[in-house]
Amino acid sequence: MKKQAAGTKANKHLKPFKIVTEIYSIINTDLVIKNKASILISDLSIQRGYGIFDFFRTINNKPVFLEDHLDRFFYSASQMQLEQYLNRTQIKQLIHQLIEKNNISDSGIRITLTGGYSEDGYSLTKPNLLITQSAFTFNTEIFNKGIKLITFNHQRQLPSVKTIDYLIAIHLQPFIKSHNADDLLYYHHNEITECPRSNFFIVTQKDKVVTPSKNILKGITRKKILGFAHLDVRETTVTLEDIKTAKEAFITSTTKNVLPVFEIDGKTIGDGKPGRITSEIYKMVCKMKER
Amino acid sequence: MKKQAAGTKANKHLKPFKIVTEIYSIINTDLVIKNKASILISDLSIQRGYGIFDFFRTINNKPVFLEDHLDRFFYSASQMQLEQYLNRTQIKQLIHQLIEKNNISDSGIRITLTGGYSEDGYSLTKPNLLITQSAFTFNTEIFNKGIKLITFNHQRQLPSVKTIDYLIAIHLQPFIKSHNADDLLYYHHNEITECPRSNFFIVTQKDKVVTPSKNILKGITRKKILGFAHLDVRETTVTLEDIKTAKEAFITSTTKNVLPVFEIDGKTIGDGKPGRITSEIYKMVCKMKER
Repeated sequence: MKKQAAGTKANKHLKPFKIVTEIYSIINTDLVIKNKASILISDLSIQRGYGIFDFFRTINNKPVFLEDHLDRFFYSASQMQLEQYLNRTQIKQLIHQLIEKNNISDSGIRITLTGGYSEDGYSLTKPNLLITQSAFTFNTEIFNKGIKLITFNHQRQLPSVKTIDYLIAIHLQPFIKSHNADDLLYYHHNEITECPRSNFFIVTQKDKVVTPSKNILKGITRKKILGFAHLDVRETTVTLEDIKTAKEAFITSTTKNVLPVFEIDGKTIGDGKPGRITSEIYKMVCKMKER
Repeated sequence: MKKQAAGTKANKHLKPFKIVTEIYSIINTDLVIKNKASILISDLSIQRGYGIFDFFRTINNKPVFLEDHLDRFFYSASQMQLEQYLNRTQIKQLIHQLIEKNNISDSGIRITLTGGYSEDGYSLTKPNLLITQSAFTFNTEIFNKGIKLITFNHQRQLPSVKTIDYLIAIHLQPFIKSHNADDLLYYHHNEITECPRSNFFIVTQKDKVVTPSKNILKGITRKKILGFAHLDVRETTVTLEDIKTAKEAFITSTTKNVLPVFEIDGKTIGDGKPGRITSEIYKMVCKMKER
């Protein structure tokens, strides 16, 4: 491209104003500027780590699997005695209001419900609802890179509830790094459960796809895979021994879709490339989501 | 007391203005009005339940056992990789500034350190320091009332660290109520550990005072009692069986001092009144604190 000489037509025009688009969040029923969205420090999330959340994507401004995520959100709230003062229709209206206001076509939306502003710093009160949106586009390149896991003996508290409790996972970041791994794989009493933010699957030598059945958070991507009728996918017990003989392994989540596991505890799984069945499931999940 | 007739001298005077004294909190290094003290919702306490705290009392505007509480606060922060940007002297200065500003003679002060404002909602950043003060006067009447405990199989995560994680304790409030108890007594693998917010002691039939030695938060009141030289107080293993034969039982904490346990799992301990040794320890703890 040629440089324009001083005084040409282009230079005579003022630059257009930079359009600053504010991103908004929702606190309870109010739209607030995201960078300023705050809650009082008497909230039980800050005082006692007490709250639940869910997280889903939007693609072309449309929420993906919203009903599944809201089912789990309401289940989590009920398990934690967080009284809903907004019903499902009202929460959906708020979500759609935020999507319209922000107009971030491809995004992640997090809805959080906390223990509320507690006078004594311990007793549950009227929960605070927080809805935030951030740009997110699925990165197809991560599939071929895969990940390395390091096993860790731990059972998450209230595993079926999507609480805000990530104490152990964040606390163990230096442990993960020191083992040259990307994430944790939790086990307890010799049974594999899950990763801190994703579900775990293996493909056995007999091409059966299996995933731990209990003491886990039941992921939405996991649920969709369990529904693939033509594949032999089952919920069962997966032990530490089972992963040693696995042909393939992968994890699933809302943001990762399906991600091959190439290494566990320093041992290569399969041939360290995305396996045939993992690739097939990945394509099917992408087809469902990334329309 | 006689009613005053209309038009008497007392009625002619205006009532004095009600003096509204604002109470302040500290967020990082700023004094802010307590009722408005807030942090952004991107903080990792709200996003991931990640933070630590400590809590101490003031009596006549003087902090009680401040050095012990600060020792534990800095230990907790370090265990959780929460980088201190303020040193001990600076934090003490902030505490004394708050005490002077609020002038609440007898109070509880909570210092909290959170995971900070995280862009990705997961990675630790510069922590947020929150210091709040509330009026608190020790209620001597609670001693004679004692409390009832219900045992529950649970091991707190990172027990030696005073994290903000009270997920299980708050989640189990309906369980506690349905068992007509006042609080939980945690055990794991048959060993008693602690209550959610206090340490546990028993007096054996041989008048030995024992308290669980491991997988607990080491309380400051507990530490002081272990230092009582003329008593036979020991840290050891306390099993579920041991509590069945206990002569006396009590719990200790910063706000409760020493509180007799009259019932565990519906079974009366001793004769359901404050025991001789519990009363003696109570008096000694009060003498140390309630000067």
